[in-house]
Amino acid sequence: MRGEILAIGDELTSGRVRNTTSTLAARCLFAAGHEIIAMTTVGDEPDLIGKALHAALARAQFVLVSGGLGGTSDDLTNAAVAQALGRPATLNHEMLDSLTRDNGQGSGRLEKIAWLPAGAEVMQPRSGMAGHLLVHAGVVIFFLPGVPHEMEELLINCVLPELRRRDQDPGIIQQRLFKVFGLAETEINQRLAYLENSFPSLSLGYYPVYPEAHVSLTLRGAATHDLASAELAVRKALGPCLYGMDTDSLATVVGAQLRQQGLTLAVAESCTGGRISAELTGVAGSSDFFLGGVVAYSNALKETLLNVPAAVLTDHGAVSTATATAMATGIRVQTNADVTVAVTGIAGPGGGTPAKPVGTVCFGLATANQTSSLNSHFQGERWQIQAMATAQALDLIRRHLLGLALEVE
Amino acid sequence: MRGEILAIGDELTSGRVRNTTSTLAARCLFAAGHEIIAMTTVGDEPDLIGKALHAALARAQFVLVSGGLGGTSDDLTNAAVAQALGRPATLNHEMLDSLTRDNGQGSGRLEKIAWLPAGAEVMQPRSGMAGHLLVHAGVVIFFLPGVPHEMEELLINCVLPELRRRDQDPGIIQQRLFKVFGLAETEINQRLAYLENSFPSLSLGYYPVYPEAHVSLTLRGAATHDLASAELAVRKALGPCLYGMDTDSLATVVGAQLRQQGLTLAVAESCTGGRISAELTGVAGSSDFFLGGVVAYSNALKETLLNVPAAVLTDHGAVSTATATAMATGIRVQTNADVTVAVTGIAGPGGGTPAKPVGTVCFGLATANQTSSLNSHFQGERWQIQAMATAQALDLIRRHLLGLALEVE
Repeated sequence: MRGEILAIGDELTSGRVRNTTSTLAARCLFAAGHEIIAMTTVGDEPDLIGKALHAALARAQFVLVSGGLGGTSDDLTNAAVAQALGRPATLNHEMLDSLTRDNGQGSGRLEKIAWLPAGAEVMQPRSGMAGHLLVHAGVVIFFLPGVPHEMEELLINCVLPELRRRDQDPGIIQQRLFKVFGLAETEINQRLAYLENSFPSLSLGYYPVYPEAHVSLTLRGAATHDLASAELAVRKALGPCLYGMDTDSLATVVGAQLRQQGLTLAVAESCTGGRISAELTGVAGSSDFFLGGVVAYSNALKETLLNVPAAVLTDHGAVSTATATAMATGIRVQTNADVTVAVTGIAGPGGGTPAKPVGTVCFGLATANQTSSLNSHFQGERWQIQAMATAQALDLIRRHLLGLALEVE
Repeated sequence: MRGEILAIGDELTSGRVRNTTSTLAARCLFAAGHEIIAMTTVGDEPDLIGKALHAALARAQFVLVSGGLGGTSDDLTNAAVAQALGRPATLNHEMLDSLTRDNGQGSGRLEKIAWLPAGAEVMQPRSGMAGHLLVHAGVVIFFLPGVPHEMEELLINCVLPELRRRDQDPGIIQQRLFKVFGLAETEINQRLAYLENSFPSLSLGYYPVYPEAHVSLTLRGAATHDLASAELAVRKALGPCLYGMDTDSLATVVGAQLRQQGLTLAVAESCTGGRISAELTGVAGSSDFFLGGVVAYSNALKETLLNVPAAVLTDHGAVSTATATAMATGIRVQTNADVTVAVTGIAGPGGGTPAKPVGTVCFGLATANQTSSLNSHFQGERWQIQAMATAQALDLIRRHLLGLALEVE
């Protein structure tokens, strides 16, 4: 079905808070075969809320409204909707009971949440916050909390089943997402552009998701074999820079490789400052393959915690392939991990020299049999250099575990 | 001025990419005194782009359009705008020259970027990507790249100065943002609600930014002394849970405290897996106060890298205040840091027991003179427990450096 997402909150229109809720909702709805024709965000102003809702009602089959439903004084969504649709606010006892059950004795704050536009029906997931829905002029409007995980729970357990019940023409949308590291978006575009002529029902999307690039392949109403052969063509064109599909991340891919090969990993980080460890430990069950690591931010710790020889630091400098290799070897000795990776570099904004400018990052990789190293130069601000170095380190492990040479295309 | 932000891209309406660009633009515009009446996102469909632009032109004084301006085949913004406004696409030689200068010899891909709606003027910042602007029916429309840092550069260097030139009624908007850790949004609301009666020109916003809560205080057209006295009242009501203001983060506040007191910090992490180090090393110049740390994800590394006695691990378990304290002491001995903090816990989804369920997290803090510890229980998914534990660890350091007892309100 064709839907629209309406997010409400001054925190969004002033840019203080990123609207992750609408993105999450769009992703879930799209994956379930629905099309989002627009996503709109307005502040906590009844007039703007009313106008945005009327605009959505005029063109969408369903509208998902999030935010402004709580009990604080700046939560105005229900009152604004009641006014805009001419449906007087009414105390909904089912909602009030649900709130009282979850939060103890009812208070004025809780009661405010339960005053809903006339005709609203409560949606109650098995656990968590309730929401409500309202059918107006043939369009179903869902009201969901603005907090992403609360919204998601209601969306999956109540909204998607409700949309399935109402959907007359499910249509077929098939999509695959290709995740790429080490190729620029325009290079990917040049390699893949011919596909849109080969498969007329196919559309390709190119998305820089720093420091990666993602490519989406969407087929509308086409046969399954079209998807399979288009996917094959994309895989061939992207080669080893294609690291994964759909919900994969570099960390989940590396984790799966390590688990499959029965290997353990440890890391030694300087300029990435714990980000490689954080990515890996974000994967549930990472203790199966990740032992831990050292963040040797100061030179002294590179010597004491990683046994980097003082002479290496003196002769080559802290940012050098020699130091990176010594760090990788040092963490391997300390942890007995099968594979180790080390990163040392200059993330800036200070610390650069003409010989080693900001963005210089050196990587080392060690196993029982070999060590290898790489010297890179990245552009951008501090956070970009740190993010690029983190992804590069994970990609080096991935390529090593694939048996590829330690080089980047 | 009253503006509207229009973001274009299928990657946004399908939820594959988070729209950080609109948020960043809203934040910059709001800080410069402009009001954002709506933020709209539509996919790469010429008809939807045209309709969204007409809707914005009808109510805004300026419109900021981002995305879909590149050279790949799914970039349709200029063509859609040319069609919607009846301004035929024209090859803009200034834009083409700028692109050729930055990217080498012109190609078909680059030329596509330079076909702009008739009447468009190029905006060229001192460095980086160009954009363009178009005045239509008295409304100025800015076209900016969708990549956040490219958009930001043009916004700051070209868009804001242009808006200042055009602004007839600058209006006075004053805003402060209060950043809180350790108090729920509803508790904050209860403490502050009386303020909106005391200061009629004041509005308060409450924003959960997991795992923190932020409170915005906005005064429109009021005197400076109102802001000062309202701010004082908020500070008093929030007490030590107010950790900072405006652009502060827990890591920048801790960094400033350490720098001011001339102290160094090191960390020992288990379930937070490097996130505390990553937060601290995100602060430019963090090598002044942050030495580094150990991510002791496996029990073996708690013994070998942090010298946690095997008996402590056996008698109390890896997740215990005794282990957390031993980890904090261990990293202090290893690094000679003045202050150390350690975290060990169960982030889930696996690993919980009836006695120590998922969400159990223990903290230790050590200095030359004392050790202290805290046992907490957090709710939520893996990433939430990790994020909460990271913030809690930073807040413990902050409270310790303020001379407060190691307790959370």
